[in-house]
Amino acid sequence: MSHQSLEEPSLEEAKAFIQEALSRRRMLLVVGNCMVDYEGRASSKLDWGERLLVVKSDGSVMVHRPTGYEPVNWQPPGSIFHVEFEDGKLKIRATRLQPKEVLNIFFDRVYHVFSAELRDEGEFSMYVTEMDMQKALLTMPELVEEGFQPLAAEKELGESGFLDILGQDSQGNLVVVEIKRNPAGREAVLQLERYVKTLREKTGKQVRGVIVAPEIRREAQGLLAALKLEFRQVSPRRCYEVLKAGKGRKLSEFI
Amino acid sequence: MSHQSLEEPSLEEAKAFIQEALSRRRMLLVVGNCMVDYEGRASSKLDWGERLLVVKSDGSVMVHRPTGYEPVNWQPPGSIFHVEFEDGKLKIRATRLQPKEVLNIFFDRVYHVFSAELRDEGEFSMYVTEMDMQKALLTMPELVEEGFQPLAAEKELGESGFLDILGQDSQGNLVVVEIKRNPAGREAVLQLERYVKTLREKTGKQVRGVIVAPEIRREAQGLLAALKLEFRQVSPRRCYEVLKAGKGRKLSEFI
Repeated sequence: MSHQSLEEPSLEEAKAFIQEALSRRRMLLVVGNCMVDYEGRASSKLDWGERLLVVKSDGSVMVHRPTGYEPVNWQPPGSIFHVEFEDGKLKIRATRLQPKEVLNIFFDRVYHVFSAELRDEGEFSMYVTEMDMQKALLTMPELVEEGFQPLAAEKELGESGFLDILGQDSQGNLVVVEIKRNPAGREAVLQLERYVKTLREKTGKQVRGVIVAPEIRREAQGLLAALKLEFRQVSPRRCYEVLKAGKGRKLSEFI
Repeated sequence: MSHQSLEEPSLEEAKAFIQEALSRRRMLLVVGNCMVDYEGRASSKLDWGERLLVVKSDGSVMVHRPTGYEPVNWQPPGSIFHVEFEDGKLKIRATRLQPKEVLNIFFDRVYHVFSAELRDEGEFSMYVTEMDMQKALLTMPELVEEGFQPLAAEKELGESGFLDILGQDSQGNLVVVEIKRNPAGREAVLQLERYVKTLREKTGKQVRGVIVAPEIRREAQGLLAALKLEFRQVSPRRCYEVLKAGKGRKLSEFI
């Protein structure tokens, strides 16, 4: 890996370093005293303070304060950069075109700059069991559908077995949820149908059946439709994210 | 600001530097070749690659790959650290106690370490108008309530004026939404009541009225209840986050 850094550069030195790193699409770190303006669909201003600026090779940008795991300001990949002096301050402008968003970062002191060309082809693997998926659906029931309310998990249903989740929809109908970690096939559909039928007989009420899985196999789709059962696509990855973030702790609430 | 860095440290040198930074609760940056294990409510493994590790003074942790504005692994503030050698690799363990989550980061090469004590008391100000809040509610209607569907914005209602948002709830009832950027008072409640009354007369149907605002003033609460109108707390900050993230682009979807 090739990498470079400067300690306590002058603003002129920092400007040259930053321009070089951005033009070569290297990962860039700048630590210094800065002020940040954002103008997009809303707008914000961050007054002066010491922070870490991270710019990645794909043009994504993060401004990090000394605390909190969320950046205080950020731009997604694809930003276009312009570096110049304005009123004696070193200004880095990151522009996103669609939707139009402009992030201006002004430094009056730079303590440290670092740039590197990182190589990373490592695979990211998540291990999510059906039990993990069940926990995720109980944590965020709207993954099943809006207004879905879980009533019980692992509910025994006589000889038919155990329901993954029993709940009710926004109209008050009972809903049986069958969770599959892998693409759901005919067997999963028939299993769900047994649960729904048993529950209809026991309650004498309308009961809906929903398979939650990353996908439903082609050969099971006709059967699902014929039995008037439903499929809701939820990936193990989404469940991982819900479990990682924890209940009601969406990352977006901390931006 | 006091700061330190090392270029191409040995793993032993890196270990001493990292331990010193963590014990002094300095912001720590480590760039190197690493592998990451996560074990919590779900689990994940990130294979070897060159990345940036950021540890902040409050114990929050981020592992950043060369692209994407989201960390591939992260821990919220409050993590407890342990640094040691394991099978010749430098291992940094970040443990969160409640819920129990363990992030293990193994480095076999460290290219760069940096630590600093950052001072940042700069205020973060968001500028969000009532029009911005309206855009946010149209982008994410569930801010009003689950199942809410906007039908029109800025709808003219004869002499009564303009409705901020007209929509329907999951039961099909018409809902008038009145948006206030500041705490809503009696005047806002009376204005909403006029809209609801006019619309009831025009349609002959059930119409609900909801005030969306950061809070409702004490002196308006009785009136709101007496008129059977409703209040939904939405902060300008939340609207800013929705607008910044864009439609359907919750940060949490990118973890």
